[in-house]
This record gives sequence, C-alpha cells and structure tokens, in this order.
Amino acid sequence: MAAITIFGKGNMGQAIGDVFKQGGNEVSYLDNGDPIKNLGDIVVLAVPYSAAISIAKANPTALVGKIVIDITNPLNFDSWDDLVVPAGTSAAEQIKQLLPDSKVVKAFNTTFAATLMSRKVGGQQTTVMAASDSDEAKETLATALKDSGVAYIDAGALKRARELERFGFLQMTLAAKETIGWDGGFAVEK
Amino acid sequence: MAAITIFGKGNMGQAIGDVFKQGGNEVSYLDNGDPIKNLGDIVVLAVPYSAAISIAKANPTALVGKIVIDITNPLNFDSWDDLVVPAGTSAAEQIKQLLPDSKVVKAFNTTFAATLMSRKVGGQQTTVMAASDSDEAKETLATALKDSGVAYIDAGALKRARELERFGFLQMTLAAKETIGWDGGFAVEK
Repeated sequence: MAAITIFGKGNMGQAIGDVFKQGGNEVSYLDNGDPIKNLGDIVVLAVPYSAAISIAKANPTALVGKIVIDITNPLNFDSWDDLVVPAGTSAAEQIKQLLPDSKVVKAFNTTFAATLMSRKVGGQQTTVMAASDSDEAKETLATALKDSGVAYIDAGALKRARELERFGFLQMTLAAKETIGWDGGFAVEK
Repeated sequence: MAAITIFGKGNMGQAIGDVFKQGGNEVSYLDNGDPIKNLGDIVVLAVPYSAAISIAKANPTALVGKIVIDITNPLNFDSWDDLVVPAGTSAAEQIKQLLPDSKVVKAFNTTFAATLMSRKVGGQQTTVMAASDSDEAKETLATALKDSGVAYIDAGALKRARELERFGFLQMTLAAKETIGWDGGFAVEK
C-alpha cells in the first residue's frame, strides 16, 4: 500500500487515481493553489507539461526523496507536428534536472484516460510502461499497480522517456486523425 | 498487383516478401552485388541502416520515381542506448535527402520478422504503419497489403518516421531484455 498524491484532477488524474485505488493504495488530490503538504510517497504530476515544470521549479524541497511521476506528452498543440522539448532530451529528463533529489519516473503517458479507466486498449489489457533511473521507484510503482487491473512493464532507464514520449505523441496524432480511437492505441503484447 | 523489389534476403526481407506475395504482388530480390536493374514500382531496402544509405547514395538515378521503403531501426548496436541518426531527424529523412526524386516511405520498422511471418503480434493482427510525404505512395502500399494478412495504417507525413523509429527502438530494447518476446510487441488496436 502506497500513499499517492496526484496533482490535477482532470481526466488523466482521475483515471490514474482510479487505477491506484483499485490497487489498494491511498489516493489524495492537490488542485492548483492548494498548499503543498502531506505529500504521499508517490507524487503524480497529472498536469500539462508547462504546469509540471512550474510545480517542479517551485517545490524541489517538498519533493526531495519522493517518487515523482511525469505523465506528460509535451506536444506543440498548435502544430501537432512536434514536441516542445528539444530533440535529444525528454520532458522527464527536464523535470529530473529540476528535481535532482527526487526519484523521477516517466509513466502513464502511453495510456489514454479511457484505456486506464477501462483497463483495456481495444480488446487487450492496458499496460503502463515506466522509465526511471531508480529501480526502487519502479519496484514501488509496480507493487502499487499489482492489483489495479492494469499490467506493468519496466521500460528501462529514464533516458527511455525519449522513446515513450515519441510513442505517446504518435498515438495521440493517430487518435486526433481518428485512425485509432481514444479507447484504442498501442497494446503491449508479451 | 505491384512489382516489388527487395534489397536483402535476411529475416526481414523474407518476411516482407512473404507478406507481399500473399497480397498478390510480384516479388523479386536483389542481393549485395547484384546489378541494379528491372526494379519494381516498390523498392524495399531490407538491409541495415548503413547499407540503406550506401544503396541510396549509389543509385539515385535508378530510384527516380520509385516508391522506396526504408524499414531500418538505426540503433547504435554497441550501446543499445541511442540511435545513430542525429536527434531531430530520422533515418527515413536522411534517405529522402539522398533520393529527392523518389517517394520515400517509412514502414515495416515497427514489426519484427516473426510478427510479419505469423501476421500476429501476440494474439493480435500485425499492423504495418507507414509514414511518407507521398499520399500516392502510401495508397499504393496500402493496396499492395490489402490481402496480405497484415493490417495497414497511415501514420502521417515522413517526419513521423522520427516517432516510428523511436517506437521500433523501444520495442527492440524490450525484446532484447526479454520483457516482451520477438513474436510480441506493440499491437495497434483501433
């Protein structure tokens, strides 16, 4: 059982909270402007990329030692043709730079809100992929998701966030063009 | 019915040929050193990235007007930690620069040889994703794959090869670590 604090109660924040609750964890939410206190072991930044950066910049001390999960897909939403993070890095790595004493994990950016809520990507079980330089953080996340209804795989070091973000970006462009549905996408088949 | 010439008869070349044959197309192969003649409408570079670059450099005239399919995943196979193409571009875009008068398509880099041969990613139908700036080329490819046993989706402009290559790279790292099998991977669920 982990204590989990989720910044943001949008579709993604709610879906991630639902998954963690089924996993038997204690979930609380922080809205924009709420005092940053009583943070859980796992802190999920379920906000847009620019807001995640602002939270990281403003709260390095409060987030020391925490598992900080970055779920963002840092698209340029004007063009839908590129990411706003420079090529050769990732949103997660940018956040890690701001939070050197936190255990930053990239996760939940490859799952749409609907596929988290239903635990299904099309007809297949939804899988959360996580990248982090902290094996301990990934093990804690894997344990918290064990009975949640979603599967979990370790996608490697935090650098793999570059791939996870391109994966999430591609998936979003396909859904935006209605090539796939927002309840579909890329399912992980072992 | 399209005439298809495949450079390279390795696992991927053979699997791609098998798929195109079932689609009712005429498939021929070129091995290293064979004279470059009687090329089909679709030319598949089923060779490693460095060899694909060499073929493009040596044969811009023979490839004028052809649909040239780049299937490569340009990994650094020493480190398995990055791609050898610079961040902010893709193998497919590099090849397009060498072949400005060809219709370059990125495709088949997100499907392992085994999932092409079986037409299944785990339990799901295998899907070929294609990116190109030529809609005509993508339509020709879609038609050639219609009865092949694999599904097809249009992944957008050639620039999306950046995402397809990161997708393929991630999938390969997961298979190399045995997190997934080489007969599994990412299935497209509509």
